[in-house]
Amino acid sequence: MEVREMGEFGLIERLRKAIGTPAGARLVAGIGDDAAVWRQGPSYVVATTDTMVAGVHFLPEGADWRDVGWKAMASNVSDIAAMGATPGFALVTLCLPASMPIDAIDRLYDGLRACGDEFGVTIAGGDVVSSPVFAVTVALLGEAAAAKGGTPVLLRRGTAHAGDAARGNDAIAVTGALGGAAGGLRVLLADEAQDKPRRALVERHTRPQPRLKAAQEAVAAGIRCGIDISDGLVQDLGHVCEASGVGAEIMAGAVPVDPALTAVFPDDALMMALSGGEDYELVLVGPEEALRKLDGAASVPVTVIGRIVDDAAKRVRVLDAAGAEIPVAQGGWDHLSRPGA
Amino acid sequence: MEVREMGEFGLIERLRKAIGTPAGARLVAGIGDDAAVWRQGPSYVVATTDTMVAGVHFLPEGADWRDVGWKAMASNVSDIAAMGATPGFALVTLCLPASMPIDAIDRLYDGLRACGDEFGVTIAGGDVVSSPVFAVTVALLGEAAAAKGGTPVLLRRGTAHAGDAARGNDAIAVTGALGGAAGGLRVLLADEAQDKPRRALVERHTRPQPRLKAAQEAVAAGIRCGIDISDGLVQDLGHVCEASGVGAEIMAGAVPVDPALTAVFPDDALMMALSGGEDYELVLVGPEEALRKLDGAASVPVTVIGRIVDDAAKRVRVLDAAGAEIPVAQGGWDHLSRPGA
Repeated sequence: MEVREMGEFGLIERLRKAIGTPAGARLVAGIGDDAAVWRQGPSYVVATTDTMVAGVHFLPEGADWRDVGWKAMASNVSDIAAMGATPGFALVTLCLPASMPIDAIDRLYDGLRACGDEFGVTIAGGDVVSSPVFAVTVALLGEAAAAKGGTPVLLRRGTAHAGDAARGNDAIAVTGALGGAAGGLRVLLADEAQDKPRRALVERHTRPQPRLKAAQEAVAAGIRCGIDISDGLVQDLGHVCEASGVGAEIMAGAVPVDPALTAVFPDDALMMALSGGEDYELVLVGPEEALRKLDGAASVPVTVIGRIVDDAAKRVRVLDAAGAEIPVAQGGWDHLSRPGA
Repeated sequence: MEVREMGEFGLIERLRKAIGTPAGARLVAGIGDDAAVWRQGPSYVVATTDTMVAGVHFLPEGADWRDVGWKAMASNVSDIAAMGATPGFALVTLCLPASMPIDAIDRLYDGLRACGDEFGVTIAGGDVVSSPVFAVTVALLGEAAAAKGGTPVLLRRGTAHAGDAARGNDAIAVTGALGGAAGGLRVLLADEAQDKPRRALVERHTRPQPRLKAAQEAVAAGIRCGIDISDGLVQDLGHVCEASGVGAEIMAGAVPVDPALTAVFPDDALMMALSGGEDYELVLVGPEEALRKLDGAASVPVTVIGRIVDDAAKRVRVLDAAGAEIPVAQGGWDHLSRPGA
């Protein structure tokens, strides 16, 4: 069997099983969350890594290499944010064709550094290797605090509550607005002249803003369940349901669709907001009151879009105003089995 | 200018400058040592990353994927060892062509895990992406202890002493025997029938044994300067001289040449021991008495091969029994500018 037949999530599950349950009591979170977490002394190391390959994750022709660098760092910052942790140090690996212009590498580093500076990340090391294809891998290390008693304070995927005697059903909220990055990609691929809303969409695609501050505000407000939207709302919320053993219901009318997306692609805006990847907004899950309070206090809007429900099938269902299910093309983003990969 | 014209070390120096001197007082070691080190609470995180690209670092045709996995992990363990630290957790990134057989990935993981188990490493996460070319990147995180007063206990590159009023010239020692891995590569490329010494050389190339235990023994014995031999003795010792602002003299007759290498390639054995890469032995620099004492006590032989000298040109000179310099083809290994890259 080949990789293309198994797909990304099948393969990750296979690797998770191959690794087994690590014996080390220091490991708090392994494969299956936004980042790995282990104890070191009185606090916790939070670690993630993300790779961008030329021709797969971006088109090298005409790409602004500063954007490539920014995004390579931003996607990692988003993963650390989605754990409720604080990023600190990065290792950067460059796979470089011998013909790559040094100028492009300078610009790539400009972008890496600009994003790193913005979010408190120091590039501490890495590796440089020769390769027929350009790729940049960032490994980002952060720190999570320990609560009284020593347990780490984190946003996890497996902590959504479907309601029990002690506590009602958790609500589901998202930060900011959705679908903009997918819209930006569509604008770029169409290669048309760009008006103001189109430029705004392209900016969402090329310069994603990880919600580090909002994640820290959520943690401070007592929220303990979250994920970042890298593959699409429905798919990423599906990971929360899978890990928590619950289902989710999203009210389509409540989903904050990027206004520029509605302006440029009115017919597809909702679908793109539900399944478009790379927005790097956060899904936050917790008591509705806490999430609504957070909306007023946080640095970005926090919009309640649905609730966690008891569902043995662990489905994510999107409902219209009448409560009927809106079918959402499954998938979002599978990095291994999409066409052409 | 293109990458091939600048070469690996030129580019790393350029990136080091681009990053600048990080403001964060938590960073102890950035670019320019075997691994990066930063403070977290009362101890230190030690971090390294290393990539292997198919067709560049190994030939995928006929490769045993378990060996690829072992080596990808082992080269990182060697870097952590060369800092005097203890490895703990790894992030593994796979760049996978869609046509890659799942069976090959299973075997790769067998090798990664086998090496990880041997050296106390838990695979905690990673990334899986589509790519036209296979590559595996391991980011390995470890921990270094703090001495009284809170400073980290490490093997550094920049701590070699050329002699001053308080202390004589440091001696230079290496663990184990050298040149075997280069010999193994030569045997593999010649594609001949393999007798016992040839098999031993191939094993050195395909299953390197990082000197984690010896490094910890050296640290316990008070040694504070070291590097692992990944690019070749002369080149890697050159990094120590560069970082410490000193020169080095190696007595050719004292260099422990791999006996299997002497048996198979008698004419070239010494040169291969001086400049062959991927042995993953350690260079240890410190007081001669401490290094000689370590030889008896350590888990592998520790052989004194020369001494640190005052030299503004920061040269590594290899001397014969009469004290005449033996020219060593410069280079060892430059990952970006070698032919074909």
